[in-house]
Amino acid sequence: MELIGIDDVTAAAGRLRGRVLRTPLLECPWAPGGLWLKPESLQPVGAFKIRGATNALARLDERTRAAGVVTHSSGNHGQALAYAARAMGVGCTVVVPEGAPEVKVAAMRRFGARIVMVPPAQRRARAEALAAEHGATLVPPFDHADVIAGQGTIGPEILEDLPDADVVLVPVGGGGLASGVATAVTALRPGAKVIGVQPELAADAAESLAAGRLVSWPPERAQRTVADGVRVSLSELTFAHLRARLDGVVTVTEEEILAAMGVLARRARVVAEPSGAVAAAAHLAGRTPPGRAVAVVSGGNVQPDLLARAITEF
Amino acid sequence: MELIGIDDVTAAAGRLRGRVLRTPLLECPWAPGGLWLKPESLQPVGAFKIRGATNALARLDERTRAAGVVTHSSGNHGQALAYAARAMGVGCTVVVPEGAPEVKVAAMRRFGARIVMVPPAQRRARAEALAAEHGATLVPPFDHADVIAGQGTIGPEILEDLPDADVVLVPVGGGGLASGVATAVTALRPGAKVIGVQPELAADAAESLAAGRLVSWPPERAQRTVADGVRVSLSELTFAHLRARLDGVVTVTEEEILAAMGVLARRARVVAEPSGAVAAAAHLAGRTPPGRAVAVVSGGNVQPDLLARAITEF
Repeated sequence: MELIGIDDVTAAAGRLRGRVLRTPLLECPWAPGGLWLKPESLQPVGAFKIRGATNALARLDERTRAAGVVTHSSGNHGQALAYAARAMGVGCTVVVPEGAPEVKVAAMRRFGARIVMVPPAQRRARAEALAAEHGATLVPPFDHADVIAGQGTIGPEILEDLPDADVVLVPVGGGGLASGVATAVTALRPGAKVIGVQPELAADAAESLAAGRLVSWPPERAQRTVADGVRVSLSELTFAHLRARLDGVVTVTEEEILAAMGVLARRARVVAEPSGAVAAAAHLAGRTPPGRAVAVVSGGNVQPDLLARAITEF
Repeated sequence: MELIGIDDVTAAAGRLRGRVLRTPLLECPWAPGGLWLKPESLQPVGAFKIRGATNALARLDERTRAAGVVTHSSGNHGQALAYAARAMGVGCTVVVPEGAPEVKVAAMRRFGARIVMVPPAQRRARAEALAAEHGATLVPPFDHADVIAGQGTIGPEILEDLPDADVVLVPVGGGGLASGVATAVTALRPGAKVIGVQPELAADAAESLAAGRLVSWPPERAQRTVADGVRVSLSELTFAHLRARLDGVVTVTEEEILAAMGVLARRARVVAEPSGAVAAAAHLAGRTPPGRAVAVVSGGNVQPDLLARAITEF
């Protein structure tokens, strides 16, 4: 299986310039052991997904764009594709699994996307069927080289701001973000470790890497975690990237995720959704290698009552 | 009275490079009328005050630094000076008015500052007495040319990211931030308007500009606003800057401040303290001139229960 390379990430970075936010790196003087945050929560759609979606759209020719794009997403990728599509004047349909957070679905609608609700297990098939029916292009949330390369642009930015980073912590859901970031960081700074982080309740990547083969969890099983953004399993493409380039996967508990959300809001003034807090949670729980660590805060689209609870109770 | 100029701000920007965060400008696609945020809440001490404190300290010679620095602050300036002083190996004492938020006082202690608690009205006199007693340098929170020039570095950064900004909205407490930003923006983009924003309950700058002379409010009167960071009055120095360079002051209600805190956390994923939310509140309440507007979110050091209440109830 062909993997993307650092040149794909560099080319994507060129396409993204001026279209997505160049996020800063935030020092955390209050955290033990040297921690910095990469707050993708500050993107205009609230998550890193705008990088992959923008790169994939920018690669389509005029005629292909005119037929529109389709995707499936529990929220952040859908918002990102809707946002990028509107900016380029492209029609966009998002297939959403039932149970996705209202706040994310409302944002997709605001960016002009057409929404189709389906049971979680049918999301991919329904998106493929819609694309075939309308001649539209399917832009999957992670199982696509252009999407992976776009997410990977976070890696060079981290190393530009902290050239001597020792550890980069990345949430793993479908694996697009971790695949892209691991590709970039291992190429640019081979001595740094890239560690994936998953909730214990959605630990398919940890299990897959341990088994040496792709182990998919049924959607119902991963639904148990509060971290709705990482309830999906790896694809063969992302598994191949992670097996080749990731230094390991660690897991965090539900309580550690909520505690990290609270700490990030109170101490770093960063709003993280549960999936966005897992990487920082692994560091705060002392479960990652020593050294100067960067945690990618992948998104901040969280239900207000859950955020308030994390701030006051954890 | 001598005012600072754009050259002072430019020189300060050079001193600050690598010492404070170069904050991004955040697009708010959800806001009516074109709004961007300048999130100084992301600074390592959670507020813009790190700019003025760092500039003032960087200007002291070795021997002066060795005798230490003293200041008075309800929190953010004290944290900033403590942080900058520790980075440069300088001793730091902060005089804190009783009633200052615990979260801010705790942070000052964490950065190694010695804390002296006094009734609000005595803060300035006590800081001056301590400086005289120990031969230390007083670095006031706003009434100082170097502090104003440091805060002003926010202006060029805004225009670098959004060269055609029409309106820049800045909270006004002691007036250091507004003085510096107005100096920079009026010099670099004369067509843009710089508007100060205050709580109705601490509107001394609005009253002073209307009267054409400095009108100070007794500390007890300004204590009524939830926006603890802007409970102080202007000095003659900041009043002179604002009279010469500000395009006006608008005021916001307590409810508008809390509502803006809630919206910023939910929609922009930005944690703002009440003082930090007043500029955005003025835009969201429709009380500012039309055009592409930038609201400076001056700080994010907020009591957790107040933040949670703003997120869920406003």
